[in-house]
Amino acid sequence: MSAALATPGYDDVVAAAGRIEGHAHRTPALTSRGLDAAAGAQFFLKCENFQRMGAFKFRGAFNALSCFDAAQRKAGVVAFSSGNHAQAIALSARLLGMPATIVMPNDAPAMKVAATRGYGAEVVHYDRYTEDREEIGRRLAAERGLTLIPPYDHPHVIAGQGTAAKELFEECGPMDALFVCLGGGGLLSGSALAARALAPSCKVYGVEPEAGNDGQRSLREGRIIHIDTPRTIADGAQTQHLGEHTFAIIRRDVDDIHTASDAELVEAMRFFAERMKMVVEPTGCLGFAAARRLAPSLAGKRVGVIISGGNVDLKRFCELVG
Amino acid sequence: MSAALATPGYDDVVAAAGRIEGHAHRTPALTSRGLDAAAGAQFFLKCENFQRMGAFKFRGAFNALSCFDAAQRKAGVVAFSSGNHAQAIALSARLLGMPATIVMPNDAPAMKVAATRGYGAEVVHYDRYTEDREEIGRRLAAERGLTLIPPYDHPHVIAGQGTAAKELFEECGPMDALFVCLGGGGLLSGSALAARALAPSCKVYGVEPEAGNDGQRSLREGRIIHIDTPRTIADGAQTQHLGEHTFAIIRRDVDDIHTASDAELVEAMRFFAERMKMVVEPTGCLGFAAARRLAPSLAGKRVGVIISGGNVDLKRFCELVG
Repeated sequence: MSAALATPGYDDVVAAAGRIEGHAHRTPALTSRGLDAAAGAQFFLKCENFQRMGAFKFRGAFNALSCFDAAQRKAGVVAFSSGNHAQAIALSARLLGMPATIVMPNDAPAMKVAATRGYGAEVVHYDRYTEDREEIGRRLAAERGLTLIPPYDHPHVIAGQGTAAKELFEECGPMDALFVCLGGGGLLSGSALAARALAPSCKVYGVEPEAGNDGQRSLREGRIIHIDTPRTIADGAQTQHLGEHTFAIIRRDVDDIHTASDAELVEAMRFFAERMKMVVEPTGCLGFAAARRLAPSLAGKRVGVIISGGNVDLKRFCELVG
Repeated sequence: MSAALATPGYDDVVAAAGRIEGHAHRTPALTSRGLDAAAGAQFFLKCENFQRMGAFKFRGAFNALSCFDAAQRKAGVVAFSSGNHAQAIALSARLLGMPATIVMPNDAPAMKVAATRGYGAEVVHYDRYTEDREEIGRRLAAERGLTLIPPYDHPHVIAGQGTAAKELFEECGPMDALFVCLGGGGLLSGSALAARALAPSCKVYGVEPEAGNDGQRSLREGRIIHIDTPRTIADGAQTQHLGEHTFAIIRRDVDDIHTASDAELVEAMRFFAERMKMVVEPTGCLGFAAARRLAPSLAGKRVGVIISGGNVDLKRFCELVG
């Protein structure tokens, strides 16, 4: 399915927005005068931690499953995911009345595994340090006739993720810079499509964990770099490489890729909890952590940040910030 | 000043809305399909934890200080508060360019004391179990020519607090029931004014800590009951009695007053963090805790809840929910 589809454009983001309307939340964009005063810039925080199932991933998953034909719906979907994509596929499948099988790492946060099962999906575990989840997903798809929806490198997923930035620009107007967290590039490439259409002069930056800067290296070297699974608290960005579709867009439409350390992510989590009264998962802090560090170069600018999700075990959250 | 002013009506809430516009945040009303499915009712959560300085108190304080004449502005304001009113007065005074003196209990959360000083106010401490904060406030007002703005029993404060419920009804439509946390009754009485004007058939409920049900007893006995300072984690509702203005409105416009235990507040804090990705202070959970317990009697109803604030030390938050 994916192979036959062209890399998406902004029209696909618009089509996705129509499909998810009434199903996905139109999440708030929060501002903080305290933050703006301290940073010397105007921040607009698009809060996908308030999205259904707690992360932006619902947008892409629901859009992709909405495009299934009758035979695909009947057989069902299979997905591999470190967590949020799993819940997003599981919830979307339930809403659209189809079976779902999810391949998850055996060290995925307990809360994410429980939520995925809670949506009625079958969970198949694997070891993220020794096994290839993509191969497992492909095998299950072939054996059971399921349609595989990968977590990021799929045109309908990318188009769905782009709806968050579309909403941000529509609600808050053009930005000078947009910071987006980066794992496999679904959110970043979708956001870039929206930015190029709605705010052509906006600089678009991806931010990935310092421990795994394959995206930064890929953009700078002009080819997809593969790395070992990075060890970082940003469990949603422990990807080993960008996708073909996501890289094609990132290469064309993204200005630069920054990194953030785990310590900076914890500092951002603490800021969000203390000052913004929000729970944000480590991966969700990537964009903000970099934007905050780079604030001196953003003086007087309008800065958009996409907060990708809030799915972190409360016990783990308190260990990190308490 | 307060003594000369009549108990406010909905027109005062409308006037307050005009004064705070562009200064206070129009906070989001969040919904959760998971919550609705579990509760069997439709919940609308007005998130004043995302208000400026982290609580609804900014609304009433800014409205009250906006009504000062030139001489009052020049001399400045004095306020007594367990925390959020202090920050609200301090921030409003700074925004309006006047000096502020705040009388705070010496066991007030460190974060609230620091924030109050951070807004440039002078902090005077007292012992909440042995000293009378109102007397201290009156003495400072007399000695220094300051205008005293009490935390709840003041018409301009009540009118300002009512703007939160006004926004909720305007954004989400009429409700069958509205749950509002109750300390001295500023938020509850203001909310009741808005409900009576915008959703006349809406049941309005106050919710106070189980450890200090003076409001419930006052409503049922038809007179203001005084109690000792209640020992509860809901530090914003450790009031000893309703006010004359607030009781006059509550008696006329509030349908009933419920209570919530500290254990129920912790359970609500955990729910908000895990499922809604929000930090809510214990006092801010009062309305939701009662609404959730009473959900069986609310089947199929549209239920508004005002979440009053999110100002809780992160360390304390993690002790409670971790």
